[in-house]
Amino acid sequence: MPVDNLAVRRPQFSTWLTATNDLTSRFVSAARIPDLINFAGGLPALETFPTDALAALAKELTLQYPQDCLGYGPTDGLPELRDAIADRFTSPILCLSRENVLITTGGTQSLDLLGKVLIEPGEVIAAEFPTYVGAMDAWRPRQPQYREIVFDAGCSDLASAFAGAKLIYTVPNFSNPSGKFLDLPTREEIVAAAHVTGIWLVEDDPYGALQYDGPPLARLIDLSAHRSPGAIYDGPVVYMGSFSKELAPGLRVAWIIAAPEMIRALKAAKQGADLCSPGLNQRIGLAAMQHGLVDEMRPRLITLYRERRDALCAAMERHLSDMFVWDVPIGGMFVWATIDGSRIDTDRLLAAGMDEGVLVGPSSVFFPSDGNNAAIRLNFTFNPVERIEEGVRRLARAVRAVQRSSAESGEVR
Amino acid sequence: MPVDNLAVRRPQFSTWLTATNDLTSRFVSAARIPDLINFAGGLPALETFPTDALAALAKELTLQYPQDCLGYGPTDGLPELRDAIADRFTSPILCLSRENVLITTGGTQSLDLLGKVLIEPGEVIAAEFPTYVGAMDAWRPRQPQYREIVFDAGCSDLASAFAGAKLIYTVPNFSNPSGKFLDLPTREEIVAAAHVTGIWLVEDDPYGALQYDGPPLARLIDLSAHRSPGAIYDGPVVYMGSFSKELAPGLRVAWIIAAPEMIRALKAAKQGADLCSPGLNQRIGLAAMQHGLVDEMRPRLITLYRERRDALCAAMERHLSDMFVWDVPIGGMFVWATIDGSRIDTDRLLAAGMDEGVLVGPSSVFFPSDGNNAAIRLNFTFNPVERIEEGVRRLARAVRAVQRSSAESGEVR
Repeated sequence: MPVDNLAVRRPQFSTWLTATNDLTSRFVSAARIPDLINFAGGLPALETFPTDALAALAKELTLQYPQDCLGYGPTDGLPELRDAIADRFTSPILCLSRENVLITTGGTQSLDLLGKVLIEPGEVIAAEFPTYVGAMDAWRPRQPQYREIVFDAGCSDLASAFAGAKLIYTVPNFSNPSGKFLDLPTREEIVAAAHVTGIWLVEDDPYGALQYDGPPLARLIDLSAHRSPGAIYDGPVVYMGSFSKELAPGLRVAWIIAAPEMIRALKAAKQGADLCSPGLNQRIGLAAMQHGLVDEMRPRLITLYRERRDALCAAMERHLSDMFVWDVPIGGMFVWATIDGSRIDTDRLLAAGMDEGVLVGPSSVFFPSDGNNAAIRLNFTFNPVERIEEGVRRLARAVRAVQRSSAESGEVR
Repeated sequence: MPVDNLAVRRPQFSTWLTATNDLTSRFVSAARIPDLINFAGGLPALETFPTDALAALAKELTLQYPQDCLGYGPTDGLPELRDAIADRFTSPILCLSRENVLITTGGTQSLDLLGKVLIEPGEVIAAEFPTYVGAMDAWRPRQPQYREIVFDAGCSDLASAFAGAKLIYTVPNFSNPSGKFLDLPTREEIVAAAHVTGIWLVEDDPYGALQYDGPPLARLIDLSAHRSPGAIYDGPVVYMGSFSKELAPGLRVAWIIAAPEMIRALKAAKQGADLCSPGLNQRIGLAAMQHGLVDEMRPRLITLYRERRDALCAAMERHLSDMFVWDVPIGGMFVWATIDGSRIDTDRLLAAGMDEGVLVGPSSVFFPSDGNNAAIRLNFTFNPVERIEEGVRRLARAVRAVQRSSAESGEVR
């Protein structure tokens, strides 16, 4: 063997890694930093977890179903859970069977699998921006191009706007990060355009149950099913749901509802992604639905989160209204606040906020291109009301610190 | 909006999907088919799971650490588990810290993440064939090329054979599927070649603890650490371990030990793969190590699996020795049996075996190219001795059925 004493150079990492951010990792692990007030992640309130009930279920289910909980399981998920998800979303219009359902290891995996089965380098994903940073994280290894679409009924010819895309991505209920709630005419136009073009329409709906004002609107998959009522669903909508926001995110159990051919493709991708989702976690999610835990939690979550949303917006009025403008969201987990006059770079609020003990999401990560540094995303579900007030005070101090340092360096625009 | 009443054509799925197989999915879900004798998957014996202890831990840990178990957690894994894995593999030579460890959602995810951070379409993975089908499943979306390498000390210039590859893949302890155990000179040459070339050397070691005869040999990562003893490990070996074979696969908890720069890259990929692994499962794995459950299981697994290996080989002598040749493996979970004279196509044994109530792994899936249809992989860990005997009888009937039908259609070679 030849011996080479020169310093060796390692092979390069894949090019997509040059464009990553670690923001979501920071969001989800920030709970371990003492006294940090975390406004950044889409974190449920820890005190809402039905801990005692889930702990008891974890033991009982392991004893009752050791093979399901401790052995390898089906790649597409426990059949009983797939059936229960199909039942839950079945309506007089939407007809679902087990073949329409794939269980995944959290919504992030749902996005990863969709990217794998649909996107080759350079292919197009159409979405509205700002959009969910975790979706762009999941798709980055597939190296897609993004096309911006504005979802507003009557504003544009959506079928033309969709043409050539491999998938359309939308969070119709309280979009992450903008909080936008798509109105019914817009939902109908989007679905019609998906049917006309045949393009897969990904409806990411983690927050659907978290609506604080007004009546809910039809899901895109329900509107799609209206076109062939009574038949097993075979349309273009790919619906993503999860236990993360309605039960407990640490379970990492989510689901995709779609046409059987899409489920089969996603299952092939999941075989090479993690083989199967953990069985104990699936059994806990199933039992929590069957025992009514999920249904019981929903009204409590809505009451608690509505109060916190109102507290955040009131604190922002007091401390941030000279700098930011925002709409009060009617659901979801976030307020999206834009700098009035773009006087500071919100990327700098990440470090400045950490100095003050508050973590926020800067707008830049929610866009596929640079130059979007004039907004922040603030979560209102995780912190109690008094922490929200204190967090906004800290944030106001961080904003003034960034303003001062920008003024000193002559950066004021 | 234009209305188009022609049948729409959906966008095509990614091209890599045309080359998939569903074999591993069949292996892991076969437990749900009544009376099927499953020789195919790498399945631990269900009766070895410490079910009562794990059930009790699941409840206690959820109550004690509700945030860790039910909330989002760090993308790279619970720090306490990363520390415990680092401690477990630390030796006077191999120096590991938390920065060397990433927790993953099963070994399949470890492979998926490695493919994402290292492989772009057309880049080269070097491996010995037959190789683990699950690794090729995990890497298929990255569209690699494979280069065949023979790992035998003195046989070839390994540094030249590695040149230009992005990663080298090996299962040195009881390779899946062949059962091959790399000898020490070969291990040393492989590690030397990785150091000379700088190429990442993936040491996949799920079976290391399952050795039935003779003394264990040094891990590749230990041999690599010999080159800079005492320093935090920063060499080219990427070591993959898992709780799947030594505790319970349904937990879906595995780990990667590697240079810190590799761990950081893998963490960025994991953020977009599933954000974080489920916390309850990590806590259970950690407690099972700390409470000695893993150490207690090991001698029991070895005794049980050695007996089953011997039972399988004895039954094969009785019923299959006129058709197949094989080596008795000294560890792991599989016997690799090759047709003596390649008189039948082992792909056909999949369906013929199912007709007889026995599931085996045909050789074709363990090669990246076609034309390798002359062997089968038989698992010996999952079934009790009397089922092993019955399963081999069924397999012998299936072999004769395929022989007959080949003879009738004039296919005999």
